[in-house]
Amino acid sequence: MDAGVPNHATAAARQVDCPSSLCMAFAETLALDGGDALPSFQIAYQVYGTLNADKSNAILVCHALTGDQHVANEHPVTGKAGWWSLMVGPGRPIDTDRYFVICANVLGGCMGSTGPASSNPANGEPYALDLPVITVRDMVRAQARLVDELGIEKLFAVVGGSMGGMQVLQWAVSYPERVFAAIPIATAPRHTSQNIGFNEVGRQAVMADPDWCGGKYLTLGKRPAKGLAVARMAAHITYLSESALHHKFGRHLQDREALTFGFDADFQIESYLRHQGMTFVERFDANSYLYLTRAMDYFDLAKDYRGRLADAFRGATSRFCVISFSSDWLFPTAENRSIVHSLNASGANVSFVEVETDRGHDAFLLDEPELFRTVSGFLRGAARVRGLAE
Amino acid sequence: MDAGVPNHATAAARQVDCPSSLCMAFAETLALDGGDALPSFQIAYQVYGTLNADKSNAILVCHALTGDQHVANEHPVTGKAGWWSLMVGPGRPIDTDRYFVICANVLGGCMGSTGPASSNPANGEPYALDLPVITVRDMVRAQARLVDELGIEKLFAVVGGSMGGMQVLQWAVSYPERVFAAIPIATAPRHTSQNIGFNEVGRQAVMADPDWCGGKYLTLGKRPAKGLAVARMAAHITYLSESALHHKFGRHLQDREALTFGFDADFQIESYLRHQGMTFVERFDANSYLYLTRAMDYFDLAKDYRGRLADAFRGATSRFCVISFSSDWLFPTAENRSIVHSLNASGANVSFVEVETDRGHDAFLLDEPELFRTVSGFLRGAARVRGLAE
Repeated sequence: MDAGVPNHATAAARQVDCPSSLCMAFAETLALDGGDALPSFQIAYQVYGTLNADKSNAILVCHALTGDQHVANEHPVTGKAGWWSLMVGPGRPIDTDRYFVICANVLGGCMGSTGPASSNPANGEPYALDLPVITVRDMVRAQARLVDELGIEKLFAVVGGSMGGMQVLQWAVSYPERVFAAIPIATAPRHTSQNIGFNEVGRQAVMADPDWCGGKYLTLGKRPAKGLAVARMAAHITYLSESALHHKFGRHLQDREALTFGFDADFQIESYLRHQGMTFVERFDANSYLYLTRAMDYFDLAKDYRGRLADAFRGATSRFCVISFSSDWLFPTAENRSIVHSLNASGANVSFVEVETDRGHDAFLLDEPELFRTVSGFLRGAARVRGLAE
Repeated sequence: MDAGVPNHATAAARQVDCPSSLCMAFAETLALDGGDALPSFQIAYQVYGTLNADKSNAILVCHALTGDQHVANEHPVTGKAGWWSLMVGPGRPIDTDRYFVICANVLGGCMGSTGPASSNPANGEPYALDLPVITVRDMVRAQARLVDELGIEKLFAVVGGSMGGMQVLQWAVSYPERVFAAIPIATAPRHTSQNIGFNEVGRQAVMADPDWCGGKYLTLGKRPAKGLAVARMAAHITYLSESALHHKFGRHLQDREALTFGFDADFQIESYLRHQGMTFVERFDANSYLYLTRAMDYFDLAKDYRGRLADAFRGATSRFCVISFSSDWLFPTAENRSIVHSLNASGANVSFVEVETDRGHDAFLLDEPELFRTVSGFLRGAARVRGLAE
C-alpha cells in the first residue's frame, strides 16, 4: 500500500493487492437498487495529492462509461496519459498540490472493481450475467463506503462528466451532507429516449456476436470483440459533433488518392472509427459495457420524487457548478439547464456555464480553456468558503 | 405486361417476368463509374396513371436507401401500403389522375433490379461482392435507359427524398435537358463525414456477423440477420429526432410496470428499435445494404467540378423546388440550403421550403401537410408552364 494513502480499514474492509491500482475489499453485503445484494465487493481506485489534517480537501472524481480510475496517471493497459490529466494534476484546475484526489473504478466496471468479469463467490466463475444489474446509485453507495474507509466524512468536491456527472448528481441527492461542492459536467438528470436507443444498439451489437456466448465468453475462452467494436463505433460518433467531424475528417480519403470502389476504409472517418473500435476492445470488457450502459439508461433522478426534480434536490446543501457544451447533442445544454432550473427551484446555490465549442460531448475530456477556467475558479471560490488555505 | 404500360422495347431491352413488378431486362452493357461494366442488367419498376399522348406528364419518383419501386401499391413482401402512398395516388400531391408516375428499384437494390443478390452471368451464382460498386450516377444512368425504353424523352419531374434526393440532383446534372422540374427533398450535395460514419457502423455490423460469410451467405444458405438488424437499429435512430423520440417514447416502459433490472427491452424505445431491426431483415438483402450505403457515401456532386457545386449545376435547365425539415439532423437544412445557394449562383430557377416539424429526417415519408402543399403547388405551377392541361 502507498505510504500516502489514508487507511482507516475496519474489520469489514481491507486493502488488497490489485494490478496497477489501490484496491479496497469489503467483506460485507452491499444492498442494490434492484433488490439483490452483493455478498462482498471490491473497489479499485487511485489517489493523488495529500489529504490534509482535518480531511477537508478531498475531491472525488467520477468517471464516464468507458473511463476508469486512472484519471491522472499513465494507463496500465494502453500506456496513454490518464483520461483527465489535463484537468487533474499539479497546477491543474483540480490541483493535486492543494487537493487530495480520489478516483474509483465504478461498480460494474472492469478495471478492478467488482463487475461482471469478477469472480462470483457462489461458484468461483466470472459473474457474467449473474451479477445483478447495477444502478448509478449503487455505484455511489459503493464509493461512499470507500470514502468512509479512507476516513473522510465530507468530500470537498465531487466532479465528473457524462455518466460521471450522473454520479455527481446522485452524490448530492443521496449524501447531501457529505458533498461541499458538486460539479456535474455534460450530463442529464435522466437518460433520454434517444440515448437509451443508442445504448440499446450497442448492447444488441455485443449480444449479436456469437462469441458473446450468452455472456459466458470468459469461461469459454472467447471474446465478442467484433460486436463490442461495432458498439464502440456507433457510440463514438455520438461523442463528437457533425461540425467537429467535418473539420477533422470531411470527406478526406485515407492513404489513397482516389476512391477504391470497394468496402475498405476509403474515408478517414471510416478508418478512424474502425481504429476506435479495435483499440477499445483491448481494454474493455463487453459485459461491463452492457452493465454500465444499463445503469445510464436506468438513471432518473426525479423518479422517486413523482417526477419532480426540484424535490430530489430539496435537501441538497452543496454548492453546484453545472457545465455544458454548446455542440453536445448527447447531453445537450437543455438537459443541463433543466438541472440548473431544478436546483434554483430547490433554493440551492448554483452557477451554470455553457462552454462554446464545436467538439461535441467529448469536449469535457479535451483541452477546453473555458472549462478549465470555470472549474478552477469555482473550486477556488468554494475553497475560500470552506476555509481551505490558499 | 400491364395494358397501360408504354412499350418501346428495342432489341436491347425487353419486358421480363418479375415477381410483383414490371421489369425491363437490358441485353447491353452498362458502364459504371468505378470503371467496370455490367454485361447486362435489369430494372424492376412500377407505374401509376396514364402517359399522355405527347408523353409530357411523366414523373419519376426516386426511392431512398431502404425503399423500393412499390411507392403507391401494397408491398408484396410486407403487405403494407406503398412507402409514399400519402404523396402519390389519385388526388394526392403527385396526382396519378394527372401524371404518369414511374418508380424503379435502384441498381444495387434487392427488389428485382440488378443487385448483389442477382445472378452473376459469369457463373450463375449470386454476385455477392463480385458486383462492382454502384454509384448514384450509375443508378441514374440505368433509370435513364428505362425511361428511354418507355419512350419518354423528357420527364415532367423527378422527385425523391434522402438518397432519392441525391438521384434527383444527379438527374438534373447528368440529363438537364430531360428534366423539366426537380424536387430534391431532405438531401445533400455530398454525404457528410458524420453520415459516412453512421453508414460505416452499419456495414461493420453486417460484416461482423459470421453468417455474412464474406458476402457469400446466399450461396451458403445463410443470412446475416443479426448484423443487419443492428445496422438498421443504429440507422433508424438517425431518421428520427430527439424531440420526436421524447414525445413518442420518453422513458415509458414496455408492457411492464417497473424496471426488470435485466437486459430485456424494458423501455418502449428498445422494443421499437428491436422490432425495426427484426422486420427490416425480412425484406432487405444485407449486401444491398452495403452497396447502397456505399453509393451514398461516394455521392459528391461537386467532385468533378473542382468542388464548385454551382459549376455542377451550370447547365441545369430544370426548375427546382428544394425542401428540408427543421428537425432533420441527418440531412439538415444547412445542407439543403447549400444546394439552393449553388443553384442560385448558377442562375437556376429555384424555390426553397424548410418545413417546420419535430419528426426528423423521416418526415419526408410522413403525413406533413406543408410538404404536401409545397409539392402539389410547385407541380401545379410547373404543369402550367409546361402546358399540361389542368
